[in-house]
Amino acid sequence: MSVSVGIIGATGAVGQRLIQLLTDHPDFEIQALTASESSAGRPYKEAAKWQAKGPIPESVADITVVPTDPDEVSSEVDLIFSSLPSGVAEKVEPEFAKAGYLISSNSSNARRDDDVPLIIPEVNADHLDLLEVQQDNRDWDGAMLKNPNCSTITMVPPLSELDQFGLEAVHVATLQAVSGAGYSGVTSMEIIDNVLPHIGGEEEKMETETRKLLGEFNGAEIQWHDVEVSASCNRVATLDGHLENVWTELEDNPAPSAVEAAFQDAETIDLPSAPNELIRVFEEPDRPQPRLDRNIENGQAIAVGPVQETPWGIQFDCLAHNTIRGAAGASVLNGELLLESGYL
Amino acid sequence: MSVSVGIIGATGAVGQRLIQLLTDHPDFEIQALTASESSAGRPYKEAAKWQAKGPIPESVADITVVPTDPDEVSSEVDLIFSSLPSGVAEKVEPEFAKAGYLISSNSSNARRDDDVPLIIPEVNADHLDLLEVQQDNRDWDGAMLKNPNCSTITMVPPLSELDQFGLEAVHVATLQAVSGAGYSGVTSMEIIDNVLPHIGGEEEKMETETRKLLGEFNGAEIQWHDVEVSASCNRVATLDGHLENVWTELEDNPAPSAVEAAFQDAETIDLPSAPNELIRVFEEPDRPQPRLDRNIENGQAIAVGPVQETPWGIQFDCLAHNTIRGAAGASVLNGELLLESGYL
Amino acid sequence: MSVSVGIIGATGAVGQRLIQLLTDHPDFEIQALTASESSAGRPYKEAAKWQAKGPIPESVADITVVPTDPDEVSSEVDLIFSSLPSGVAEKVEPEFAKAGYLISSNSSNARRDDDVPLIIPEVNADHLDLLEVQQDNRDWDGAMLKNPNCSTITMVPPLSELDQFGLEAVHVATLQAVSGAGYSGVTSMEIIDNVLPHIGGEEEKMETETRKLLGEFNGAEIQWHDVEVSASCNRVATLDGHLENVWTELEDNPAPSAVEAAFQDAETIDLPSAPNELIRVFEEPDRPQPRLDRNIENGQAIAVGPVQETPWGIQFDCLAHNTIRGAAGASVLNGELLLESGYL
Amino acid sequence: MSVSVGIIGATGAVGQRLIQLLTDHPDFEIQALTASESSAGRPYKEAAKWQAKGPIPESVADITVVPTDPDEVSSEVDLIFSSLPSGVAEKVEPEFAKAGYLISSNSSNARRDDDVPLIIPEVNADHLDLLEVQQDNRDWDGAMLKNPNCSTITMVPPLSELDQFGLEAVHVATLQAVSGAGYSGVTSMEIIDNVLPHIGGEEEKMETETRKLLGEFNGAEIQWHDVEVSASCNRVATLDGHLENVWTELEDNPAPSAVEAAFQDAETIDLPSAPNELIRVFEEPDRPQPRLDRNIENGQAIAVGPVQETPWGIQFDCLAHNTIRGAAGASVLNGELLLESGYL
Repeated sequence: MSVSVGIIGATGAVGQRLIQLLTDHPDFEIQALTASESSAGRPYKEAAKWQAKGPIPESVADITVVPTDPDEVSSEVDLIFSSLPSGVAEKVEPEFAKAGYLISSNSSNARRDDDVPLIIPEVNADHLDLLEVQQDNRDWDGAMLKNPNCSTITMVPPLSELDQFGLEAVHVATLQAVSGAGYSGVTSMEIIDNVLPHIGGEEEKMETETRKLLGEFNGAEIQWHDVEVSASCNRVATLDGHLENVWTELEDNPAPSAVEAAFQDAETIDLPSAPNELIRVFEEPDRPQPRLDRNIENGQAIAVGPVQETPWGIQFDCLAHNTIRGAAGASVLNGELLLESGYL
Repeated sequence: MSVSVGIIGATGAVGQRLIQLLTDHPDFEIQALTASESSAGRPYKEAAKWQAKGPIPESVADITVVPTDPDEVSSEVDLIFSSLPSGVAEKVEPEFAKAGYLISSNSSNARRDDDVPLIIPEVNADHLDLLEVQQDNRDWDGAMLKNPNCSTITMVPPLSELDQFGLEAVHVATLQAVSGAGYSGVTSMEIIDNVLPHIGGEEEKMETETRKLLGEFNGAEIQWHDVEVSASCNRVATLDGHLENVWTELEDNPAPSAVEAAFQDAETIDLPSAPNELIRVFEEPDRPQPRLDRNIENGQAIAVGPVQETPWGIQFDCLAHNTIRGAAGASVLNGELLLESGYL
Repeated sequence: MSVSVGIIGATGAVGQRLIQLLTDHPDFEIQALTASESSAGRPYKEAAKWQAKGPIPESVADITVVPTDPDEVSSEVDLIFSSLPSGVAEKVEPEFAKAGYLISSNSSNARRDDDVPLIIPEVNADHLDLLEVQQDNRDWDGAMLKNPNCSTITMVPPLSELDQFGLEAVHVATLQAVSGAGYSGVTSMEIIDNVLPHIGGEEEKMETETRKLLGEFNGAEIQWHDVEVSASCNRVATLDGHLENVWTELEDNPAPSAVEAAFQDAETIDLPSAPNELIRVFEEPDRPQPRLDRNIENGQAIAVGPVQETPWGIQFDCLAHNTIRGAAGASVLNGELLLESGYL
Repeated sequence: MSVSVGIIGATGAVGQRLIQLLTDHPDFEIQALTASESSAGRPYKEAAKWQAKGPIPESVADITVVPTDPDEVSSEVDLIFSSLPSGVAEKVEPEFAKAGYLISSNSSNARRDDDVPLIIPEVNADHLDLLEVQQDNRDWDGAMLKNPNCSTITMVPPLSELDQFGLEAVHVATLQAVSGAGYSGVTSMEIIDNVLPHIGGEEEKMETETRKLLGEFNGAEIQWHDVEVSASCNRVATLDGHLENVWTELEDNPAPSAVEAAFQDAETIDLPSAPNELIRVFEEPDRPQPRLDRNIENGQAIAVGPVQETPWGIQFDCLAHNTIRGAAGASVLNGELLLESGYL
């Protein structure tokens, strides 16, 4: 028995990835696709400028796109995936939640709200029950949960493993792919033979979302982790795959081999789209590389480079596919977690 | 009255940059060019595969390349610029020094030797007199001084300014241009749609050279600075210009405005190739960018981005042209310093 | 005595190039800058997102941008440079011409109109007097002349030289830089590790403009040349510089050496921005290359590769800087031609 | 019953692709891998610097590499795939053929020899029996057949279809990927923000191989087709996928729709690695694009853009994956043809 799902903001880059990931999904079946008024009323294959590799899946090509409005979406739909621009999502997602839909959202709005769970299933699935607090607070039949920013998702699984050694501080520099800015977000004139430093808003997201993700949920609220994070985010000329240089300050001063073991033993979760191995550790110093390693475990694993000692703790590089594990795939995992946890 | 100079290793990428910078130089005149045996005996225009922009300067095109051997170089030459591979330089530079030549070298060998000055003129010109110790130690008529690695040069001028605020620790991530690896150092298959992490040897150079550069010379030896530096070095698809994300830990906790003022007031030096402004501070968060800013002050300035506070000190980005300020131009400056200081 | 000039559409990519080329121009002085309503009323340095290398020239930084309307431009201005989007230019340029301004335009509208001269000064300066026909026809005090499309300008100077050998047919494939599409015209997602074939509208422009440029002006109208041109236009990941592979069919079957001599002897014109050498012929088969050769003669020369025989005529490659010789620089040359010819 | 095969030159880029394509092949089983003396004696996983996506297939990782010498290869091997540099292949391939091996070779040597079949299975499988002439001529127990150059393979299937309309002349410009030059063939300094025209030797290969491929085999020799081909070959910054702009001169002046139908109806061949659809025709003018379309039918199809009329015939673009259909995959297809035709 599959769950009927809808995608709101289905024509954008993340929307297209969602369609790829949800086509042939064992539990979910796409029933509704929404977009802005100008696209509504047309079959998806005409409304979207399909930019993903491979053709538009046949199962969605002829679905008529409807406006992004809960009244326009069939009531058979139980779960909504949202990849709207945050300005739009801020207004629309609460409308869907009020109308009774569960929403797994990739949009950046509301991520830090006290009663909105921000979740990476392998890291903090136990935060999910904050949804009940949310429904109480807001008097909603539905509810929304969020996945973090793509650059945050890349480093938090390894950081979560380091927490056992007393995680106190993180410095992180990112080398992010252009797809993270959306299909038209970075022009060719900007990035050929160039790097763009200080991607707007990205650094603050990494600094705050990390603390919420690693926080403790006491049944009523999340106690944010007190790790100090300082991020410097750069856009480079790669298509997909965010590479990050991470330094951690650790109270317990573990040996690199202990950290490496912790990474390799990171607990996985039994969800259809979850990787078998959450963290793949490379021994070669010149790995992970975006083009070579972004597709490990269908883009859902975190690739980590050699674990090295510094005067203060442990340095490592990490890499994830930013539009799969870092965006659409993260939302799909959160949808699967909702199903697994009995919310659907 | 110009000084006759020779370039050893004249056909490589840095050698070509040296030729560009020394052609029309007010004080130096190229008299000798050396290369490996296979190139020797041919006019430079045939021996070198000229890859720099613009044509080969006419003044060197017909100079006959000689083997890299002090006996082959005219005794009229007083100053040698070296851009040999370090393995070759290790053997050859001492031969030239023994034969009485002064050598301004970009090669990485011997940079950490106790009696070899490692110099950025605006930062530690006072280390130059270590040459006398060297000549005593080694019983040489000549002597050699070194400029640091390109990635070290980029960050040390601003770090030197921060020293007044109690510089304790540095984390640095680099986004380095392909030209830093030499003309054939990075293949197109490696770097298109990709990043290469942990450039071999680069991180250790940044960690050690920085401490020597910021050290104190007491007339007999350099007391290395005790700042702890941890570097993570990445190769990205830019042609020229190393961009670096730098975090510093500062004892005195200065305001960003004080740091910015210190950067802007960084002392310059009166040498023909020195920039008028050593550090150019940008207010825009998306600057400096390699393609836009690598040529400031003919590639001899350090471009710095906005100065930001972190929980531990100050974060900033910096950028320099890696084959000018970071290599050939650094050697030329050191040659000018030798002249200015009366060594020639 | 300098001529006061205005730039309409001054904030775009070509507008910025115009400003660079007109700053410090011996004959022209920028007096007016126009842009869309949303930019009007602000100093240029705020109205424009300056993207060219180097800072905004001080002489224009504080000029207040006015709306693109002849009534808003000082009557002291005698010459207008236009780099408006063609849709806007179609409406606005006639208004300026009617109001008495001479316009040197890079916009693609009206290029094929019977009474509008389309000019490359070295190729068909004698077409300029079509302006008189235009003024008669349209009852305008002012007038407008056009420069061709960037990809057309690149190949027409050599084709013009081949005309003496009986030019009958041209096949041309282009490898065009992203700057030709404007600053935001090509996204990074489109062009990294990719090529975009059949650039919209470009092929037809090359096929028709070439025939008009090579045509005969009999005092009343242009008799278009009857050469058949077939173009295939591709966008590649270069920043500047259109490279073109050209095959010609020539009635007279000249030797490559004769063609090479014709290229090298191509007549130049005595205008301030004109190159000393119109066509630079390379002997090396791997030249011209966009990055190495786009800036020859300040970007105003045409670089040509080795001249080769085919079963039907002559094959050669050519290259020009698309935003200088192919756009802004072409307009400046046409403005200089107007001055030289007594129209100003 | 599978055929035991060997790969000579197994560590290079094409050798690695061969391994990828032959692993899990229904008819072939890799039994021997050869490389230069310096690699011999080591397990493949150590001898090769594996650069393909994904890990080294386990079935070859531990095969001990042997020198490229027929005496070193197990006599159980029946078929040899060769991707040696042509200079080496010229010497070694005849030794293997003399020793009784059948060789499907991608190397460029001997491709134009009178008694060496040059084959694209869907185009000229009937040339295969030239192998008998070869064995007679050379008194060999084995034999060698060749696949054409990558840039030739891309355009010949569509040209073969056009032959029915009286193919008289071809102009072709290529935009070739860097992988065509081998892993280290194009440096990053050469290709970032650049194009390299006139790739050495490539143009002549396209001009001659095309005529041989389209020729008639009369049982004794190939009568080369008399089509005149003129090629201009460019290297661009794409990783894989050669895009080509092709103009044809056709005697019969067919309508574009007839040509399109001919392309779509191109005969396929029943071999395990052959595409179901040999030529995929796109209607969109901006297709095919290298990154989007190089992997159609596992990289074995030819993608063709819109068919357009010119004054002389038909223009179209075509694209193929240069290391699959254009190299390793072509050799595998030829090996399959040998098996299918009873030579094995």
